[in-house]
Amino acid sequence: MYREEIKVLDCTVRDGGLINNHYFTDEFVRAVYKSLSEANIDYVEMGYRSSTKYAPPSDYGAWKYCTDEKISQIIDGIESNVKISVMLDAHRIAEQQFAPVDESPVDMFRIATYVKDIDKAVALSHQIHGLGYETTINIMAISKENEFDLIEALDQVAKTPVGTVYVVDSYGYFFSEQIHYIVDLFKKHLPGKRIGIHCHNNQQLAFANTIEGIRKDCNLVDGSLFGIGRGAGNCSLELIMGFLKNPKFSIEPVLKIIQDYMIPMRDEMEWGYMIPYVITGILNQHPRAAIAMRKTKDRDKYVEFYSEIRDHGE
Amino acid sequence: MYREEIKVLDCTVRDGGLINNHYFTDEFVRAVYKSLSEANIDYVEMGYRSSTKYAPPSDYGAWKYCTDEKISQIIDGIESNVKISVMLDAHRIAEQQFAPVDESPVDMFRIATYVKDIDKAVALSHQIHGLGYETTINIMAISKENEFDLIEALDQVAKTPVGTVYVVDSYGYFFSEQIHYIVDLFKKHLPGKRIGIHCHNNQQLAFANTIEGIRKDCNLVDGSLFGIGRGAGNCSLELIMGFLKNPKFSIEPVLKIIQDYMIPMRDEMEWGYMIPYVITGILNQHPRAAIAMRKTKDRDKYVEFYSEIRDHGE
Repeated sequence: MYREEIKVLDCTVRDGGLINNHYFTDEFVRAVYKSLSEANIDYVEMGYRSSTKYAPPSDYGAWKYCTDEKISQIIDGIESNVKISVMLDAHRIAEQQFAPVDESPVDMFRIATYVKDIDKAVALSHQIHGLGYETTINIMAISKENEFDLIEALDQVAKTPVGTVYVVDSYGYFFSEQIHYIVDLFKKHLPGKRIGIHCHNNQQLAFANTIEGIRKDCNLVDGSLFGIGRGAGNCSLELIMGFLKNPKFSIEPVLKIIQDYMIPMRDEMEWGYMIPYVITGILNQHPRAAIAMRKTKDRDKYVEFYSEIRDHGE
Repeated sequence: MYREEIKVLDCTVRDGGLINNHYFTDEFVRAVYKSLSEANIDYVEMGYRSSTKYAPPSDYGAWKYCTDEKISQIIDGIESNVKISVMLDAHRIAEQQFAPVDESPVDMFRIATYVKDIDKAVALSHQIHGLGYETTINIMAISKENEFDLIEALDQVAKTPVGTVYVVDSYGYFFSEQIHYIVDLFKKHLPGKRIGIHCHNNQQLAFANTIEGIRKDCNLVDGSLFGIGRGAGNCSLELIMGFLKNPKFSIEPVLKIIQDYMIPMRDEMEWGYMIPYVITGILNQHPRAAIAMRKTKDRDKYVEFYSEIRDHGE
């Protein structure tokens, strides 16, 4: 598949940070940025710009806040055409500051929201866009939204200056047919907007669903190195690169950073295909119960977990 | 997805045996058979009926040969509606014996073949069918076959009494669109035959491609417990069960055997998502080079492996 319009965003540091409270070393973040610059990936997302009110700095590493100063320090001296992205939670905005884009290393803010918080996301998008940044709105947990509310939200987003609106399958629930359906719905209600896709790998469908999004004209697609991300993780960046035939991409730097950093990291951090995440995925539920049980001594008691979740889930 | 015609075959012991030269314990094989009987899976495949001429018994465990006596011993006393399947390699037939079906615990023989050996497969299918067994022909490595030869093979198979013909993506190369294309080709050239699908997981697409096969009317689908199988492994049986809504299936016995046997087994045997298998999959090559490199000290040197395979592969 080669379509010049398709852009790739790496969320290794951002989604991976959900596993380790964003305590990645500067060395690692710098290596990710450098490798993905060499690979010619389009966007690298470094983390969240969270409020210290909602997320006290005693509990989190630097990538929970992504200050302009911190990012500038990390990327200093690295030759790169990569754009830098930072995520915002629409429902947790407080004291965060945003400089005008020409005073910041950040190129794009992505506003993550549930349908219920869409008004907050819309207001925030106007503010951020007004400062000159690229903006996206990422509608999370979409497999649990009813279509009436979702369409109302999309119709509101259609009137914003946001450039890209993301389908986010937070629960790793969708199959190809649902992806086709939901992307078509987005296209219908968001004329002129770029559609993005962010998939989770609970049922080993993150890459497949990303492909199905691409087949339906999604032109901003998310991946992470070796699929790192909370729970079952994300679509693997290396698989996206094998699929996209855009000659500007180079896969070797991606393979190199996987062998040098991601394989050793797996000894310390857990993500990927595991039965508890399969179960929450199949049952269309948030992975929080699976994340919790993986931290107990009953981490591999799947039958009990299935019974509990099926009968009392949500 | 619920379509009563869809039947599920578990190939845990057969494809998993390719990792450990078929040295599974009797206890394990019995546990698989018992669990999958409780789960109401349709077929369980126990291994190969290989020739001792091509595969000397000093080198392999019992599941390389699957004698009627051995199978009868394993299933003795287990209440079950599961049918038993055994695989044959069309190009390695020598002294193997086949009793009439009513004297054997085996219900189905699956004949694995490359297009070049299709005449051997066809001859064998007549012999086996004549003894009263269900038969399938499984066309391997199909992503490397040219369409002229493939169609010639399909047209020959169309004239046999074989009930099912399998699309086998041995290299884990295909995406959804190629699956749609190849299944349509099978349907066109094999009127009246059931189409089966067997996928490998090099690019984490085994489950997705199995779903796409099902969407295109494949009615015999292969999976294995926790995806066990050579290299990147197969489509996970537990994912198929989550997808198929046939009320006769029960997923609990599958979760139970995974937690009791498959998770501990992963400490001793290697299968699943690994970058060398991604590389052979992307490049549409047999996984043998990846299997070999995973046994060396350079098992995680992906960049060198990619360079070697890309430049000198096949």
